[in-house]
Amino acid sequence: MLNTVDLKATISKADYKSENDALAERLGQLQRELLAADISSVIVFEGWDTAGKGAVLSELVHDLDPRWFFVHVPREPEMGTEFYPPMHFFWNHMPEFGEMAIYEQSWYTPILEERVHGPARLDQEAPIARTLNFERQLSDDGVIVTKFFLHISKKEQSRRLTELKADSAYSWRVTNIERERHRLYDDYHEETSAVLEATHCDAAPWHVLPSTDLRYAQQQIKKILIRTFEARLAEHKKGKKEKAPKVSLGKEKPLSRVEPNQKIQGKVYKKRLAELQEEARRLQYRCYEQRVPVLMVYEGQDAGGKGGNIRRVVREMDPRGYDVVPVAAPRGAEKNHHYLWRFWRDIPKAGHIAIFDRSWYGRVLVERLEDFAQKHEWQRAFQEINEFEAELHEAGAVILKFWVHIDADEQLARFKARESDPLKSWKMTDEDWRNREKWDAYQEAVNDMIHLTGTAHAPWTIVEGNNKRYARIKTLETIVARLRERLDL
Amino acid sequence: MLNTVDLKATISKADYKSENDALAERLGQLQRELLAADISSVIVFEGWDTAGKGAVLSELVHDLDPRWFFVHVPREPEMGTEFYPPMHFFWNHMPEFGEMAIYEQSWYTPILEERVHGPARLDQEAPIARTLNFERQLSDDGVIVTKFFLHISKKEQSRRLTELKADSAYSWRVTNIERERHRLYDDYHEETSAVLEATHCDAAPWHVLPSTDLRYAQQQIKKILIRTFEARLAEHKKGKKEKAPKVSLGKEKPLSRVEPNQKIQGKVYKKRLAELQEEARRLQYRCYEQRVPVLMVYEGQDAGGKGGNIRRVVREMDPRGYDVVPVAAPRGAEKNHHYLWRFWRDIPKAGHIAIFDRSWYGRVLVERLEDFAQKHEWQRAFQEINEFEAELHEAGAVILKFWVHIDADEQLARFKARESDPLKSWKMTDEDWRNREKWDAYQEAVNDMIHLTGTAHAPWTIVEGNNKRYARIKTLETIVARLRERLDL
Repeated sequence: MLNTVDLKATISKADYKSENDALAERLGQLQRELLAADISSVIVFEGWDTAGKGAVLSELVHDLDPRWFFVHVPREPEMGTEFYPPMHFFWNHMPEFGEMAIYEQSWYTPILEERVHGPARLDQEAPIARTLNFERQLSDDGVIVTKFFLHISKKEQSRRLTELKADSAYSWRVTNIERERHRLYDDYHEETSAVLEATHCDAAPWHVLPSTDLRYAQQQIKKILIRTFEARLAEHKKGKKEKAPKVSLGKEKPLSRVEPNQKIQGKVYKKRLAELQEEARRLQYRCYEQRVPVLMVYEGQDAGGKGGNIRRVVREMDPRGYDVVPVAAPRGAEKNHHYLWRFWRDIPKAGHIAIFDRSWYGRVLVERLEDFAQKHEWQRAFQEINEFEAELHEAGAVILKFWVHIDADEQLARFKARESDPLKSWKMTDEDWRNREKWDAYQEAVNDMIHLTGTAHAPWTIVEGNNKRYARIKTLETIVARLRERLDL
Repeated sequence: MLNTVDLKATISKADYKSENDALAERLGQLQRELLAADISSVIVFEGWDTAGKGAVLSELVHDLDPRWFFVHVPREPEMGTEFYPPMHFFWNHMPEFGEMAIYEQSWYTPILEERVHGPARLDQEAPIARTLNFERQLSDDGVIVTKFFLHISKKEQSRRLTELKADSAYSWRVTNIERERHRLYDDYHEETSAVLEATHCDAAPWHVLPSTDLRYAQQQIKKILIRTFEARLAEHKKGKKEKAPKVSLGKEKPLSRVEPNQKIQGKVYKKRLAELQEEARRLQYRCYEQRVPVLMVYEGQDAGGKGGNIRRVVREMDPRGYDVVPVAAPRGAEKNHHYLWRFWRDIPKAGHIAIFDRSWYGRVLVERLEDFAQKHEWQRAFQEINEFEAELHEAGAVILKFWVHIDADEQLARFKARESDPLKSWKMTDEDWRNREKWDAYQEAVNDMIHLTGTAHAPWTIVEGNNKRYARIKTLETIVARLRERLDL
């Protein structure tokens, strides 16, 4: 994509000025319309050193309302990639619906750096796949993703570096890093071409702009954004019909093969529980030492015993190393972001454990059944969730997912017991009874979920739950086995 | 406080065991009651190396529901004190109402380190004052703050360090840092005594516990927390009558001396604006270079012209260095924290500028007038806000506060103009008209605000606002002057 760019493209000052006010005003209007329509946008600026990323960015926001955009310049250690997967920072810095996020350098910068400087046998596929997934997920959620690459020739870069160096006000901007990158211009050129090519997609197209003449680039950026925003708003007004993806629902019924009544002897339970809790603590320290992040997901019917199960799991663990995340309906800013946003926020740091009491699977359970998500949204979620977990797995995480399974009779018995116990009656609400009425629909959704999101690196464990003790032992045994498998012991 | 502790205090294993189940169960109950009553608690563990902070903490949480507490072990660079004031991290990690936060090491650790290792002429007052303010503010907001210091003798510490060092599983825990701190035991002892003494207060008492016998300390901690929680819950049930602090309201009327009609000639405006915007950009870079954080607060009547004013101020600034924070009614987690919490989250990093379009002053304006805050709450806020700003000032921040002042006629004219302008009519809501009915009460609240929170380091600038151009120039001039005063140019 770099080679087809006319680096000599230019615009006269007069021509630039004659259009600029109208373009700026139109951008301002569009910003307000996007805000009103709850459509957010993400704008990426990548490009060569001295190509003018900072300058175009300043010019772009000139006529925008500064309350509704923010600019990020991601740098280490703030990005935290030492402790988190590469996309963690970016997920955590997504705009709220209607707002605009602008990145000077983005998730592409580390990819390019790695391709130029990383080991020869670097996995080049994974970062590209991750990027495409990320941008497609945002786009599917209604975010406008626009990417600009500012292009100048090696000769032009050399000229600008020399000029900067000579200017006492700017000479600090030319360090060995810029010099080294300039020296490797051809290598960067090759890798950049490949990466732009591979990530130029409908969901998030690249616009490669010559910025030998900065004004030319500035004007193009405005025009492209105006075109993009107008097209989206037109689509929005028309009310785009969203197509649900193809997913094979109702094909497998893993729950039907499960007998929720399992027994364990009281004495055996006590002894085994103590052993497993001790072992869990030992393995927790190993995870910390080896910087392995661990995610445990608990899903299950109301009164299934998730809370009590979690308490037994963490009983002997060091509380400095785990976090239990109770998940309820989204609120505040959570409602104004992609549904995965809040879970990205809560994923564990390397070496730590996060236990989710309910999770992102709400998208294909409660949100599916209660129509909180539209059909195409929850059907799309199976793939999104698989991609999300694959990304965590690639970053070294162990992912454990438990469906705590009880039958309808057992739930009824527990509900009644709760109601009559003054210490537990607060746990019961009308909603619990209402949810119970949808028992069969729920089973179906669970079957689909287990079928469609059970993967090799993030398998579901169905925990027979009518007997809470049995369930706790099975959970702990699964955890211990999976950690032993993953850790270097 | 250290010297009066009986380091030989001990408890037999049998005695410990006989009480422990009941204590643990009671703590679990109290946790649920605090959650139901929306009372949060903050528990601090400080103490000597090897005194057993980690162990008591693990033991404490054993019988708590892990969904409703979290443990923090603040360490650099995560704490971010290179870029933010000392309390930033802790404000950002406060529990939601009803939840519990436990700190292993806390805001006291850096204070002690500085006193032992810092320069001889260290300011010892400011950190203590800051700490007392912080804990009192939390306590006033209903948070239970409990602080434990685990005490052992120098001899005992020496014994434990040797033992650890000899154990291959734990020897990594004894580094030069621990050895050096051991060597300086007496210095730490002296400083710790002084700090504990100075920060032992009703709002947040210290409990110094001998932990020669760890079980003794563990039991004491449970007992103290049970006592503390029970007392608070009893108070809560009784419905404690809160007393409003003494503040002199209605004493000063700064607005009465202001003539909102001021003029500026069109040509003068244009020229001056461009100059000031250029200068603002230059000064912004200086702030970045010199790592000076800047806060600008805009308050004013609806249609006062805040938004347009802000846009002119940032017009030429580098968008990578500023952030405009629009402030609306709190939502989600913001409603479940101290009202200052969300503003602590948004304070600028060293070298950056944060511009608040409305701010924490909502507490003494809209929250006062609409009864969103109780009388004692908004009256207390004057002091809290002064303390908040003093803390930012101490951390090097420049604080600019603008009251954009228009009169009632001007507002009416602007409301009508907005309603008839199709591009701006979306800005008008019924609420604007309702607020207008309270014009006089609002003026009174503003007079009190300006009178009670105008300080030398964070003065109010009343901006005569009937003429928007005049207002913009005055704001920019104030900004430029204040930055020039503060920066090393």
